Amino acid sequence: MTEGTTRIEAFSDGVFAIAITLLVLEIRLQHAGAHGSLLASLLALWPYYFAFALSFFVILVTWIAHHEVIRLVHVTTHPLLLANGFVLCYATFIPFPTAVLAANLAGPEITTAVTFYCGTFVIGSGAFNVLVATIARCPGVDMEAVRRIRHGFRITFAIYVAATLIALVAPWVALAINVAVRVHLLRIRYQLAMAQQTS
Amino acid sequence: MTEGTTRIEAFSDGVFAIAITLLVLEIRLQHAGAHGSLLASLLALWPYYFAFALSFFVILVTWIAHHEVIRLVHVTTHPLLLANGFVLCYATFIPFPTAVLAANLAGPEITTAVTFYCGTFVIGSGAFNVLVATIARCPGVDMEAVRRIRHGFRITFAIYVAATLIALVAPWVALAINVAVRVHLLRIRYQLAMAQQTS
Amino acid sequence: MTEGTTRIEAFSDGVFAIAITLLVLEIRLQHAGAHGSLLASLLALWPYYFAFALSFFVILVTWIAHHEVIRLVHVTTHPLLLANGFVLCYATFIPFPTAVLAANLAGPEITTAVTFYCGTFVIGSGAFNVLVATIARCPGVDMEAVRRIRHGFRITFAIYVAATLIALVAPWVALAINVAVRVHLLRIRYQLAMAQQTS
Amino acid sequence: MTEGTTRIEAFSDGVFAIAITLLVLEIRLQHAGAHGSLLASLLALWPYYFAFALSFFVILVTWIAHHEVIRLVHVTTHPLLLANGFVLCYATFIPFPTAVLAANLAGPEITTAVTFYCGTFVIGSGAFNVLVATIARCPGVDMEAVRRIRHGFRITFAIYVAATLIALVAPWVALAINVAVRVHLLRIRYQLAMAQQTS
Repeated sequence: MTEGTTRIEAFSDGVFAIAITLLVLEIRLQHAGAHGSLLASLLALWPYYFAFALSFFVILVTWIAHHEVIRLVHVTTHPLLLANGFVLCYATFIPFPTAVLAANLAGPEITTAVTFYCGTFVIGSGAFNVLVATIARCPGVDMEAVRRIRHGFRITFAIYVAATLIALVAPWVALAINVAVRVHLLRIRYQLAMAQQTS
Repeated sequence: MTEGTTRIEAFSDGVFAIAITLLVLEIRLQHAGAHGSLLASLLALWPYYFAFALSFFVILVTWIAHHEVIRLVHVTTHPLLLANGFVLCYATFIPFPTAVLAANLAGPEITTAVTFYCGTFVIGSGAFNVLVATIARCPGVDMEAVRRIRHGFRITFAIYVAATLIALVAPWVALAINVAVRVHLLRIRYQLAMAQQTS
Repeated sequence: MTEGTTRIEAFSDGVFAIAITLLVLEIRLQHAGAHGSLLASLLALWPYYFAFALSFFVILVTWIAHHEVIRLVHVTTHPLLLANGFVLCYATFIPFPTAVLAANLAGPEITTAVTFYCGTFVIGSGAFNVLVATIARCPGVDMEAVRRIRHGFRITFAIYVAATLIALVAPWVALAINVAVRVHLLRIRYQLAMAQQTS
Repeated sequence: MTEGTTRIEAFSDGVFAIAITLLVLEIRLQHAGAHGSLLASLLALWPYYFAFALSFFVILVTWIAHHEVIRLVHVTTHPLLLANGFVLCYATFIPFPTAVLAANLAGPEITTAVTFYCGTFVIGSGAFNVLVATIARCPGVDMEAVRRIRHGFRITFAIYVAATLIALVAPWVALAINVAVRVHLLRIRYQLAMAQQTS
């Protein structure tokens, strides 16, 4: 099965698109508990809106990162399909920690919920590291680009581990780190893309 | 990451297709409450059918509008991915206000529900305005077409704000405005397309 | 917006693929009611398996029919997008009557449930007739093929109306007619395709 | 309807992508039952994580196998659409036995749940055998490749029947066989692909 990467990209895009759209199913009026009015219920759902927006942003950035990684490779092999499957498994799992986060963000168990949420990204970052290591062994790959991306993914992995540990004592700080690192990565990629364009 | 717009279009199409299909999950027999017969239950679900059809039409028109906007741009940049992500975030959110609308259309909280529903389109229209403003800064864009679409989106934004305010006093009028503005936009686009074809 | 039909086909395929996959969400152990053992519960779910298989077949045949109709047209116009949206709205709605059917197939309200289920196909067939009528007004369409398909859709519409009326007195006969007409249509199309191939 | 296989592949990819993503919807905090803390609830959900990962792997391998089978054929006929529909029906059904497995893996009904889960793969393997038999009758097919794949599918079918029987007495052994056979199949395919590449 050594064909191009068109179908693996289409399948992955489909999985990302569905995972990002399923997030909304967790926002339900029943989750608001008993409140006087509909307005009070809608306002009481703020942790659900927050978790929805946060995970939407996370999956979107993951989808962008996935593009850049898959672009490195030009043939589909079985190890690649498996390593890519590991990444997709992580992506499809995200709605569950998002639901856990939303249900506990305004409650006494926020520390456990945020640690679980942040821990998911450690697994996810691990999956991306496995994917890049698999791509590094594929034939005809630009090793220079692989080495650069690999280096970046190792740093991100360390940051996600740190954020998960921080979540144990300061959950909101951990969430802020998770947003900041992704915004930073997007900015770096954007500057690189701009630099490539002008040169 | 300066590639064509094929994958951003495919991803967006996937998200729109899933969001529009998830709408049906909100129509459930349990929502009908206790009624004598199945026929009475099916009839009691009319607010759910109405909200389903309305939001289906809204997402369909949004998908058509998205096409026209994305057609203006020929390269994918990071700001475009983010602005497009904002639009998709709005589109995937629609099933929730639809559920709120359906659950309250026949009840005492209709005003709050319709205001929330209409308010979603203010956010959505804002997202489209951000997307067009981002596209205006992309290289090699037909600025004349951008200016025309931008002008139209600003007017639509104002109408959606007005409809949300009207919802506070006359919810059904606000819903009618939301349908009318979309039918009107489709008609204008159709006439433009026909004019382009004959010339 | 006069472009090819690639994106309308991709969007429609996505909607059909999601609608057909959502059917499984209705099969749940909780629907089995209180039974002694897991085996008894799994067996008690037979109306859900039956409704799942039936609607899967229905959506699959609808998807095949949709292909043949869209193949007739080569440009995307706004009326086409709307008429196609009507067909997709019907397709995404199918999971609901399927759920109603499954919940009542073994109960006293089977007549109402089957009539509602069959009535959905009258609307669906109406949507297809509107789509073909819209295509007939598109430029550069093979009018001979349109006329043949149109004739077939009118006959199918009449059969679905008849099946819905029969459902009021003999629900299982109505379901059998719905299966038979689709098997028959597939066979006719297959023979036509074979004849075209050999000639 | 004798066209290429692009749309049947795209539709099938969509169905596989959705089925694999719906698996996560079964993991819910409510399924954990009453536990002291959130951490205890998250740990009590281990059967759900296990079933999620197992079925994710199963659908991923099924998707890979589906590719290899569809690659054999170059025209879409009605019997192919139906046989492929049978395979897709099996794939979309998988979330239900997965839910049954997850809900009973840690309970007294594990034998029934695992037998039901393994039995699903007997049906699925049967569907693949029907698909290959259908392809064998398509024009212009490499009969040597068909014969080889057909032979493999018959052996796999026998193994899945054996695993289902073993599940009646040793459920965990049956699950291990199901994983082992898929890992083995992936390895064989990988070696074949590598051999083709070097030759």
